[in-house]
Amino acid sequence: MSGGSRPGRVIALCGGVGGAKLAMGLYRILGEKLTIVVNTGDDFEHLGLSISPDIDTVLYTLSGLANRELGWGRADESWNFMDAVAALGAESWFRLGDRDLALHVERTRRLKAGHSLSEIIRDFAKSLGVKAEILPMSDDPVRTMIVTSEGVLPFQRYFVEKRCAPKVERICFDGAALARLNPALDRAIADPDLAAIVFCPSNPFLSIDPLLSVPGFAVALRRARVPRIAVSPLIGGKAVKGPTGKIMGELGIAANTRAIADHYADLLDGLVIDEADRAESASLALPVRVTATLMTSDEGRKRLARDVLDFAAQLAVRRT
Amino acid sequence: MSGGSRPGRVIALCGGVGGAKLAMGLYRILGEKLTIVVNTGDDFEHLGLSISPDIDTVLYTLSGLANRELGWGRADESWNFMDAVAALGAESWFRLGDRDLALHVERTRRLKAGHSLSEIIRDFAKSLGVKAEILPMSDDPVRTMIVTSEGVLPFQRYFVEKRCAPKVERICFDGAALARLNPALDRAIADPDLAAIVFCPSNPFLSIDPLLSVPGFAVALRRARVPRIAVSPLIGGKAVKGPTGKIMGELGIAANTRAIADHYADLLDGLVIDEADRAESASLALPVRVTATLMTSDEGRKRLARDVLDFAAQLAVRRT
Repeated sequence: MSGGSRPGRVIALCGGVGGAKLAMGLYRILGEKLTIVVNTGDDFEHLGLSISPDIDTVLYTLSGLANRELGWGRADESWNFMDAVAALGAESWFRLGDRDLALHVERTRRLKAGHSLSEIIRDFAKSLGVKAEILPMSDDPVRTMIVTSEGVLPFQRYFVEKRCAPKVERICFDGAALARLNPALDRAIADPDLAAIVFCPSNPFLSIDPLLSVPGFAVALRRARVPRIAVSPLIGGKAVKGPTGKIMGELGIAANTRAIADHYADLLDGLVIDEADRAESASLALPVRVTATLMTSDEGRKRLARDVLDFAAQLAVRRT
Repeated sequence: MSGGSRPGRVIALCGGVGGAKLAMGLYRILGEKLTIVVNTGDDFEHLGLSISPDIDTVLYTLSGLANRELGWGRADESWNFMDAVAALGAESWFRLGDRDLALHVERTRRLKAGHSLSEIIRDFAKSLGVKAEILPMSDDPVRTMIVTSEGVLPFQRYFVEKRCAPKVERICFDGAALARLNPALDRAIADPDLAAIVFCPSNPFLSIDPLLSVPGFAVALRRARVPRIAVSPLIGGKAVKGPTGKIMGELGIAANTRAIADHYADLLDGLVIDEADRAESASLALPVRVTATLMTSDEGRKRLARDVLDFAAQLAVRRT
């Protein structure tokens, strides 16, 4: 951290639920000094509406509106729209809550009117009282496609409809080659006040790789003169939630912290791993911080965020 | 009625709430032998969604889903979407209920996918268990525009946002000149089983004139060899609900049943008026049936429908 007393800007890379928890911890400490770059590979059209699941999870988490029981969507939600949609015989495998619909309808309207996803999300964040900067990785469509034993599935069909059951053979990011990196990321990286870049404990293959697939993203990260730290999404070789471990197995990758470090390779200056994986730290070729990474409370989120920032400050000192 | 025992097909022309009540009465008697041609001049885009207020009122009324307290929308409705929309700072002057949204979202999706409004409404009616044939007057957009003392207002802005306060100078139907008449209307009129055409007690200027503005509509009505009967929307010179009386005054037309008869002119073979307007029947140059036209219950709707069909049968006999 710049000076140690006043926290500098932090860029967090983030997918959905797990990553958003650490983003929330960082937000509690950093407020407007936090820039969160969010995966849009899970975005899709459903019932004619433009849905951005990971961005909305971050918006809801940071604004305190997230539904903690479900792990997605809004708290205090009702489902009358969905019931009426099902009665019409329309698709209902992807559930949209009544309150949640406001973001989808308004996003769809504004995208059709020619506004960029970035502008729309900036306004949503403002309306919801979120002071952190939330950046879609790109305003151009990038679509995560899962090549499985049952054919090629768009991400939500694999994740929600098929509940991650099909065996994953390969993961592709349609549109990535032509997608333009969100220019605000360049500005955030060039900020002289930048202190650290944090890879949140999201699924590296499904949630962070889409960011890295956007041309220029990895280059921009390498250019940054601050510590880049990932928090492993594994605890004892398993994901807290979601299919990270299963997918690593199907892709022929051992589900351990070493594989996470190898995956991010030279993009990382340090890795935060859980106490349960302490034994693996000896096999890691980069600086490691061992701590409790499970975030079961607001305090837990903030505590892990503090650990990450402290680790970054330590690595920054070592650099100079 | 053809033969008197078995009711023939009836075509009803209808706008929103008031008209839909009589349509419901007719539906109870006629079932699938009822064709309802509905005003789409009130249709508009709101929050990026395609809204068809009069068609939905007819769908909800006939399927038993209508909200009788509000007089619009669905019964047992919730408003969580609207609250969330308002929190985003988006337009909230036109309220869309959570359950009601299903029709708007699915209609919007299908229109964008190239389906016609007629196909969509046919499928909606089927899903909601409505056996009557519900026809948009045209699949092409016709938009009722109100020229007022405060400028030109699209219908919903005048009706909902401004609560009919501005003085009406003129009413226009944008798009009408190029709109194609719903071809199913021609089929219904050519049905050898056709027994009557009923102008429901909707606002003649706001709800029925849009139908008549579609080229070929009046011609088709004149071609029909069955009695054409209107039910006056006035009771004692006033509308039960809505701005009919106010608008007639502003347009310089006396708010009485004579003016209603004059407005529809040679399209009518008979007029049904309320007991309260019995004194006016002497001034009317066409056959008149005097009855109680206020429909405060299901029984009242059915009773008025029976009166109308009986009047039509009487006029048909007189013709032959």
